[in-house]
Amino acid sequence: MLITLEGIEGSGKTTQIDYIAAYLQKFGLEYIITKEPGGTVLGEKIRSILLDPGNNNIHPLTELLLYAADRVQHIKELISPMIESGKIVICDRFCDSTTVYQGFTRGVDIRLIQQLNSLVLEGLKPDITFILDLDPEIGLKRAWKQIKDGSRAESETRFENERLQFHESVRNGYLELARQEPNRFVVVDASMDPSKVSEQMLKHLEKCLMAL
Amino acid sequence: MLITLEGIEGSGKTTQIDYIAAYLQKFGLEYIITKEPGGTVLGEKIRSILLDPGNNNIHPLTELLLYAADRVQHIKELISPMIESGKIVICDRFCDSTTVYQGFTRGVDIRLIQQLNSLVLEGLKPDITFILDLDPEIGLKRAWKQIKDGSRAESETRFENERLQFHESVRNGYLELARQEPNRFVVVDASMDPSKVSEQMLKHLEKCLMAL
Repeated sequence: MLITLEGIEGSGKTTQIDYIAAYLQKFGLEYIITKEPGGTVLGEKIRSILLDPGNNNIHPLTELLLYAADRVQHIKELISPMIESGKIVICDRFCDSTTVYQGFTRGVDIRLIQQLNSLVLEGLKPDITFILDLDPEIGLKRAWKQIKDGSRAESETRFENERLQFHESVRNGYLELARQEPNRFVVVDASMDPSKVSEQMLKHLEKCLMAL
Repeated sequence: MLITLEGIEGSGKTTQIDYIAAYLQKFGLEYIITKEPGGTVLGEKIRSILLDPGNNNIHPLTELLLYAADRVQHIKELISPMIESGKIVICDRFCDSTTVYQGFTRGVDIRLIQQLNSLVLEGLKPDITFILDLDPEIGLKRAWKQIKDGSRAESETRFENERLQFHESVRNGYLELARQEPNRFVVVDASMDPSKVSEQMLKHLEKCLMAL
């Protein structure tokens, strides 16, 4: 089983992953937590290129190909073997981030992204994808607060530095994906108290687990 | 104009690039020398991932996508602007390296490589490609000698460490490409004295320059 979490920066993905992990643990279900970009040692190196604010002249297609490279390595080295061994994989960002960030907002041809995604995924698809939906103004305030209190690395703020309009378009991109594939996506109002957000998410996760 | 040089390690590409540069300079022709992977600042970071012997579990498709990412950035940031400004671009390795190394020898689907190459190149094609053809046993001896005398970085020897059979297959791959596209490729016997090799190459380059 593959669970993915998507949402703008500051939407609370990390916190919600902890809730999911605690929930699975309670039922004795084995899981691993991973993330994109950077779910492998090699991927960490790709991540450091992608998130380095110094690389501000990166071409959108370069960016797309680097994310694809990271994802292939992640799937082959970690995700697929873990799923095959019966573990539940929880992933912070996955293929939908690419569609939204590179496609909807940076304007890379969506067909091209889908082509690359299908090449990279080889049929793998998240069983459930949570979209933590949040007004970007709230999200960015949260993210900056975390940078100030040290719980978020400043070096990872290339995307956070983008204009508010960019994050609005990311948010709308996610909601558009959810409309297209309502069976896979669960949109949750992430402005609520984290425990309330988690309550909603776990209800859906429970249904999904029962169906497997 | 885009001139590319291809060949196994130790075939003398760097030396021959110096000869070409001297030749162009003699005629007052403006040129730049570049290389793949790593022709841009961002590309250097991708190169360091690709050539790090520690990354020995890199998946062939990851590798392919990293080379493609490096190439897109190289073309958009450097090669295309230079060509548009009227300069001659001399590039140490280019798209044919991907076809040969990732396709013919690592077994990545050639159609997939061509698809990615056409996505990345957007119609750009070398005007002339020199293949420095050499018995891999000689090439590897030369490469190791250069590492010993300090003129070649040891860290860049991931490919050099491959088995002899691998380099044989690279050599045959290049010769196959040359058969398929005889108008673009010039195969030169790189076992000769470097000045002799250069003489042959410059004769072909002259013809190519006259034809433009």
